[in-house]
Amino acid sequence: MALFNNKNKNKPELGFGTKNYNKSVRFINQDGSVNVKRLGLGWLKNTDIYHWLINIPLSKLIIVIVVGYTFVNLLFATIYYLIGVRGFGGIDFTDGIYGFLSLFFFSAQTLTTLGYGHMYPISHAANTVAAFESLLGLMSFALATGILFGRFSRPKAELLYSKNILISPYEGITGLMFRITNKMQYELIECEALVTVSYNNPETKRREFDQLNLETKRISFLALSWTIVHPIDENSPIYGLSTKDLLERDTEIMILIKGINDTFSQTVYSRYSYKAEDIVENAKFKRLEQEANKKGKIIISVTDIHIFDKVI
Amino acid sequence: MALFNNKNKNKPELGFGTKNYNKSVRFINQDGSVNVKRLGLGWLKNTDIYHWLINIPLSKLIIVIVVGYTFVNLLFATIYYLIGVRGFGGIDFTDGIYGFLSLFFFSAQTLTTLGYGHMYPISHAANTVAAFESLLGLMSFALATGILFGRFSRPKAELLYSKNILISPYEGITGLMFRITNKMQYELIECEALVTVSYNNPETKRREFDQLNLETKRISFLALSWTIVHPIDENSPIYGLSTKDLLERDTEIMILIKGINDTFSQTVYSRYSYKAEDIVENAKFKRLEQEANKKGKIIISVTDIHIFDKVI
Amino acid sequence: MALFNNKNKNKPELGFGTKNYNKSVRFINQDGSVNVKRLGLGWLKNTDIYHWLINIPLSKLIIVIVVGYTFVNLLFATIYYLIGVRGFGGIDFTDGIYGFLSLFFFSAQTLTTLGYGHMYPISHAANTVAAFESLLGLMSFALATGILFGRFSRPKAELLYSKNILISPYEGITGLMFRITNKMQYELIECEALVTVSYNNPETKRREFDQLNLETKRISFLALSWTIVHPIDENSPIYGLSTKDLLERDTEIMILIKGINDTFSQTVYSRYSYKAEDIVENAKFKRLEQEANKKGKIIISVTDIHIFDKVI
Amino acid sequence: MALFNNKNKNKPELGFGTKNYNKSVRFINQDGSVNVKRLGLGWLKNTDIYHWLINIPLSKLIIVIVVGYTFVNLLFATIYYLIGVRGFGGIDFTDGIYGFLSLFFFSAQTLTTLGYGHMYPISHAANTVAAFESLLGLMSFALATGILFGRFSRPKAELLYSKNILISPYEGITGLMFRITNKMQYELIECEALVTVSYNNPETKRREFDQLNLETKRISFLALSWTIVHPIDENSPIYGLSTKDLLERDTEIMILIKGINDTFSQTVYSRYSYKAEDIVENAKFKRLEQEANKKGKIIISVTDIHIFDKVI
Repeated sequence: MALFNNKNKNKPELGFGTKNYNKSVRFINQDGSVNVKRLGLGWLKNTDIYHWLINIPLSKLIIVIVVGYTFVNLLFATIYYLIGVRGFGGIDFTDGIYGFLSLFFFSAQTLTTLGYGHMYPISHAANTVAAFESLLGLMSFALATGILFGRFSRPKAELLYSKNILISPYEGITGLMFRITNKMQYELIECEALVTVSYNNPETKRREFDQLNLETKRISFLALSWTIVHPIDENSPIYGLSTKDLLERDTEIMILIKGINDTFSQTVYSRYSYKAEDIVENAKFKRLEQEANKKGKIIISVTDIHIFDKVI
Repeated sequence: MALFNNKNKNKPELGFGTKNYNKSVRFINQDGSVNVKRLGLGWLKNTDIYHWLINIPLSKLIIVIVVGYTFVNLLFATIYYLIGVRGFGGIDFTDGIYGFLSLFFFSAQTLTTLGYGHMYPISHAANTVAAFESLLGLMSFALATGILFGRFSRPKAELLYSKNILISPYEGITGLMFRITNKMQYELIECEALVTVSYNNPETKRREFDQLNLETKRISFLALSWTIVHPIDENSPIYGLSTKDLLERDTEIMILIKGINDTFSQTVYSRYSYKAEDIVENAKFKRLEQEANKKGKIIISVTDIHIFDKVI
Repeated sequence: MALFNNKNKNKPELGFGTKNYNKSVRFINQDGSVNVKRLGLGWLKNTDIYHWLINIPLSKLIIVIVVGYTFVNLLFATIYYLIGVRGFGGIDFTDGIYGFLSLFFFSAQTLTTLGYGHMYPISHAANTVAAFESLLGLMSFALATGILFGRFSRPKAELLYSKNILISPYEGITGLMFRITNKMQYELIECEALVTVSYNNPETKRREFDQLNLETKRISFLALSWTIVHPIDENSPIYGLSTKDLLERDTEIMILIKGINDTFSQTVYSRYSYKAEDIVENAKFKRLEQEANKKGKIIISVTDIHIFDKVI
Repeated sequence: MALFNNKNKNKPELGFGTKNYNKSVRFINQDGSVNVKRLGLGWLKNTDIYHWLINIPLSKLIIVIVVGYTFVNLLFATIYYLIGVRGFGGIDFTDGIYGFLSLFFFSAQTLTTLGYGHMYPISHAANTVAAFESLLGLMSFALATGILFGRFSRPKAELLYSKNILISPYEGITGLMFRITNKMQYELIECEALVTVSYNNPETKRREFDQLNLETKRISFLALSWTIVHPIDENSPIYGLSTKDLLERDTEIMILIKGINDTFSQTVYSRYSYKAEDIVENAKFKRLEQEANKKGKIIISVTDIHIFDKVI
């Protein structure tokens, strides 16, 4: 049986090695991240903190900022408390806890360069720490500006992939088909698709990677939806295989979409992967409704890309 | 009649589908936007708010900022009002409305980190809200910095397209011609043009898309003006068609210009489209005056690109 | 005489037209700018103000900032003056000019969100204007941040071009040669050169543009210097022409260098042009001294690229 | 002996010249910088200060900021001191040194736009200088924002290269091999390698540069590790040479890796070089452990790429 022989000249070097893991693995997660963890890098480098802050959800970032702000103010309030009552004007120190809280708010007014001035530093020590704290505040704020700008201006391709990948009738043979559409309000242009299949080869006991031929590799606008079709002809590495075969071989279909976000003229990438479990045989995507409204604007409903019908 | 057979090997996959809408549609608007609306995306994601703020006119952005600033100050003034008179120093609360207005201005002084200090928070509640408001102010300002920078540094190709597209005598046959020029003060280099025609095919009842061959596809500098010419020879998809035919077929001529803004070394895109109504037959663009002034600088008047003469 | 016939297949479309100006013109200035002025654009658009502020010398930018700051403060001082003495606390209005100056400084303290607080707004009108001024201050500062960042992060290729372009003996024939080197401390990699000659054709009475063949079009690092050589063989458009011929034809040799600044991975462009007056015949560039110092570091002196010796 | 004849058609023009330095030199340092110093450029231009601030370690940048902040405050404190006691309110001038220190802290409160207000300018001179200082503070802070953003958003490819380059058995012949892996948490995609050998040619007495053929020039993901192999066949410029020969010829193996950081869709470059001293003969890299953990995530330990075993 030579089903998995490489009939495809496009033997891609994906960089995932050829190891057979003897259990089900996934190279690309459904959120597009690569499913690999690198150990031995030591602690996080500052550049990685930036990447981390750029990538965490907005809600987490807000927590990081608020917790960090509170922590820094607690730290400086402690330093001011150690400097003591004589270092400050306008603060009532008769109650220790009340005094500490006042110093906490004084610290916040210094860090943000608010400086109402009803509380103010008198001694050299208090003045020096306050001068340093305001510098730190400005620098932290500069960093925050960079992080917020970095988050928002980051090139993104947010695509919607159909939940399933179908094996449908296609020009006399069958085709492997999935659909994508653009989830963003701006346009993606000059889109290209690269589809690779990965599976355990039962003969060589190694993991193989083959690039799949596509009916259309490139479209000018991802304005509506795009059904990406791999014709399962005799040159296909999955020719003659049933869904059961694909499951047994722990098959993964990895997709890389490349396009240009034309608001920022940035090349953007989107990745996705389907496992054999996501394949539906004898099914066909339902044609997407696309209508011109009264003003001549073409309307589509993007979530309809998941819908398919069974064929007998 | 096989006029619309694809004689052109460059059958582009534009991504607009082949549906015949049975009414006049336009795929590319004259401002270059794609005339498609995507439904089913749920509420706007934050990343889309950024794109929206980047793309709205400056006047609208100013309104958004001023209204947002007023709204946030009203909100905090309300919170301070609920905290009450004892929470603040320097505010006259004898008159409720006067007191609320003072708190509104206190909020503005806190949000911008201005902090004159003649009004200041005393109670823990007032201090805590003020500490949070100043942090919010800094973060909002960080966002505004990012948005303003994003707006101004966004790669743009502002081209002027001739109002009409002409069918002119051209080397024994006729040619479809339009002119473009650069509206910006900086240079566009390595410019390329891609022209596609879209029409309803009366035979197949489907919408067809064909790329048009161009006399010159690429110029090094868009320094003066560029007349882009499609020779209407027998390979042309519009060969032998009258303006009336083009109108009946709901023809759209879509243009994509790609170039490099050499101030920022950014690739920029410009789109435009002509409908059949914009076509003028038996006309010829008037040669653009380009003169060298006393200092040897070459002078052109860009708005002259619209001018054409009728030919018999 | 068919000297100017296009023997070169690389007939570039530069976008400068074919008009013969009947006087000496220059298409590319020595600072790399394109020597064209576009009229009819109406007033400057805001995006052009950004480009202008990005491109002016630092000294001019500082003047713009200081003058703008003074002007805005004068404007607000006038508004505060019109609001009058009762609107403010801490200001001595007994002397009109002294009062105005105090309001000017109050404005500066508000615009920069400094807010010492010894002067402060009391009336609603004064408070409202101050709240608006501090918002304006923050937004202007956001703009300034964007402009400064835009200036510094702008991709640049600062190359030094040899003052003259030589016609030197080269492998049995002669070659047109100039030298370039990198003026910046960072590296330029993957550099490519494109050299075009422009001249009035005495036969056709039109301006012609021809791309010149180069011995080497591409180098991996512009680490030392690069002598760019066009062999003047029989395929050269300047074959058989004397310097006097080149002068008569108002010849311009236009150079475009493209490379990658590897600090920012940005593609950068540099342009330059030589006129016939810059050509020196029978001369040869002096070999650049490049020595390895004690630590093995290779040392070159970049200004030596101008030096050439006459050959008999 | 014609060992160093160029059998390789890929004769790259690296831009390092062909000079034989008669001592051991290195063109690419191990940190990837080019080992060339350019003299004659005059003083540092402002754009180079930006590049310098972008490239220095974070610890140095903090020192620059703190020292600069202290210096500017000392400068303004001196100016305020010269203006004298009458120019300010809230400052105790009875002790000269105490007064100067107060002015130093007043300067810090002005530069950061903190402005508590317990110290404040009264005279016109003091007010004018303070108004200017707060503007300078905002502009410096704008610069700092740009520098911090520039540092963090700079495209980087931090690769780990194996300490040694091995000559290992390879498909019947031998191969020159080194390994790389990604040190960052984000992915590098579409990676390409370019390997060039540089050596003194004993025949021509010149330095030669040859590109080495690679078994695989390109991988899609640098997710695990990548062993880059140059087969030492008869076309190789180092065919038949012993390690001793390579040492005598002062051989340097220069590596350029190009990839795309997919968080920012930026093309990034990494350079490295091995000298003949780094070559180990008859050795083989130990296979990297790559295991799927319980969740199916693939785990590798990046520092293991240095490990090799001797082969007999």
